[in-house]
Amino acid sequence: MDKLIEAISRTGNPSVVGLDPKPALIPAPVLDGAHAAHPESRAAALADAYRAFNKAVIDAVADIVPAVKPQIAMYEALGPIGIQLFCDTCAYAAERGLYVLGDVKRGDIGSTAALYASHLGGVPDVAEFGEGFGTRVENPWHEDAVTVNPYLGEDGVMPFVDVADAAGKDIFVLVRTSNPSSSQLQTLPLRSGSDDESPASTVADQVADLVEQWGAGTRGEHGYSRVGAVVGATHPEEGAALRRRMPHTFFLVPGYGAQGGSASDVAGMFDADGSGAIVNSSRGIIGAWRKDPRAADFTQTDYTRQGADPDAAEREAIADDARRSLQLVGDSARNAALAMRKDLTSALR
Amino acid sequence: MDKLIEAISRTGNPSVVGLDPKPALIPAPVLDGAHAAHPESRAAALADAYRAFNKAVIDAVADIVPAVKPQIAMYEALGPIGIQLFCDTCAYAAERGLYVLGDVKRGDIGSTAALYASHLGGVPDVAEFGEGFGTRVENPWHEDAVTVNPYLGEDGVMPFVDVADAAGKDIFVLVRTSNPSSSQLQTLPLRSGSDDESPASTVADQVADLVEQWGAGTRGEHGYSRVGAVVGATHPEEGAALRRRMPHTFFLVPGYGAQGGSASDVAGMFDADGSGAIVNSSRGIIGAWRKDPRAADFTQTDYTRQGADPDAAEREAIADDARRSLQLVGDSARNAALAMRKDLTSALR
Repeated sequence: MDKLIEAISRTGNPSVVGLDPKPALIPAPVLDGAHAAHPESRAAALADAYRAFNKAVIDAVADIVPAVKPQIAMYEALGPIGIQLFCDTCAYAAERGLYVLGDVKRGDIGSTAALYASHLGGVPDVAEFGEGFGTRVENPWHEDAVTVNPYLGEDGVMPFVDVADAAGKDIFVLVRTSNPSSSQLQTLPLRSGSDDESPASTVADQVADLVEQWGAGTRGEHGYSRVGAVVGATHPEEGAALRRRMPHTFFLVPGYGAQGGSASDVAGMFDADGSGAIVNSSRGIIGAWRKDPRAADFTQTDYTRQGADPDAAEREAIADDARRSLQLVGDSARNAALAMRKDLTSALR
Repeated sequence: MDKLIEAISRTGNPSVVGLDPKPALIPAPVLDGAHAAHPESRAAALADAYRAFNKAVIDAVADIVPAVKPQIAMYEALGPIGIQLFCDTCAYAAERGLYVLGDVKRGDIGSTAALYASHLGGVPDVAEFGEGFGTRVENPWHEDAVTVNPYLGEDGVMPFVDVADAAGKDIFVLVRTSNPSSSQLQTLPLRSGSDDESPASTVADQVADLVEQWGAGTRGEHGYSRVGAVVGATHPEEGAALRRRMPHTFFLVPGYGAQGGSASDVAGMFDADGSGAIVNSSRGIIGAWRKDPRAADFTQTDYTRQGADPDAAEREAIADDARRSLQLVGDSARNAALAMRKDLTSALR
């Protein structure tokens, strides 16, 4: 986890920007311009719009946040063209010096998990995969870390740990997620054995103990392993207890802001030195532009969204509006990121 | 689950062929020809080889099996070009009349899960996603069903159920998986409340009960819902108990054959009418060609795998060998599928 920890230290900012584009978050002229350029395919149009939007956000925050977290589902919904955009987004963010955390929540058994782990470093040329095919498949993914689902146990996780260790990357395993129904499985109380002296625990506690173990062989200079945990901001007391339970496990904390978590809620997920966690915000940053009065200029349109086909002069006007709206997106994202940094660092004093 | 049940009935065959291509399973001339055609990209070469291999298998079994199950990790490992091939594979199988079960094991919260559910029917044009973008994004996925991970509880599952219900599709939720470490979470014993009269249960039992509930509103003509369960062949007694526990839940059963499960192991996962489950086999069918004596002709090469660049005459010889090897792949797959049908139907009498 050293690369991420050092990036947090450089920016003085334990937050990650969630790159979760969707039409409702994108200025109308950007959507319109993309739609006019791609009458043949709405997926191609949305991909273009997302591309421009992501670039505006990345360019605006690259020097003040340590990391970005693209949520692959937004991209996967567009099919292969969306996956290409996901890869391009990760590549661009990496080029701008950001730590890239792919929120892919992958999980499968043994050799299948090893293939998913290609997200961290190309396809391994192992005997099982097939001798003689020479060198690795070139890596299209450009991610520093991915999120992983633990439901299948260690067979589904260790292949990721092995690849991460070899490639200098990290993973974050779901432990206690931020959503309302997370309690349906995660807080189920476990029956303890007759000789068990530890306090009654839950499924999430068991996963937490496994995560701490799974990372044990990969601790870095700062005392944290390559195996992090996803712990939601929406369960502050449990989060603080998990912080104590997993001393060498770095936390990715979703749920701050839009989902209800506050800076004081997340304070307990950090360690005594103010490290140990990174807090995600998506809509609060990438959607901040919508709270600006100037947003009113960019939420309606006369053009393609009503089915009209803009002529050349109209297209130029749309392009102009698109540029101005992306400037607003970027400026608002930057201001929101600065406010978040201030909010978190104040709560951590 | 009616579409699948009727396909099983038509073919008299409760089995699904896992389309899990990897270099070790593909005849050398096929790999060589693909490599020679794509010196610029190993991912493109592998995608071509997988494409030809999948077509040979699909063509050989389309009239005798009801379904195929492509494992997306094999494709995702190749990046966007692999995801395109996954979509093309699903489309081709659907064109050949097969039920297509995408083994994607996706899982995330709320609105994100709804975007993953695009696998079943294009992106919904809901107010949250963005008014005014007109009609749905065209659906690139061509799947009849997908596998889903339950770790996040119902927030992560109901969006899939809603889309499946609207689109006439199905899902299969992981309950008791086939892999060795599945017991780390799934068999954890739960503490029962003081007024709880039901027998002590495990995490998997709890998930099973949730799955039966989640499907309750979507039962079809044959008594099964649109929400199936993944129950591994490697735990026969538990599987039989789960069969009784989830009377309206159809099972997808991995682990037969190569992972150790036998026909008598899986018999208990079926209902009294011989319905209620479909059994997967991947390597046992798509890799069956390697057990044929003629396989020896297709596992070595003098060409690109040793770095040589074949001339025109050599390329023609490679193409010839590739064609003959794919014929062997198909014939062997067909024979293995027929044997599996016989094995299962005998065990079910």
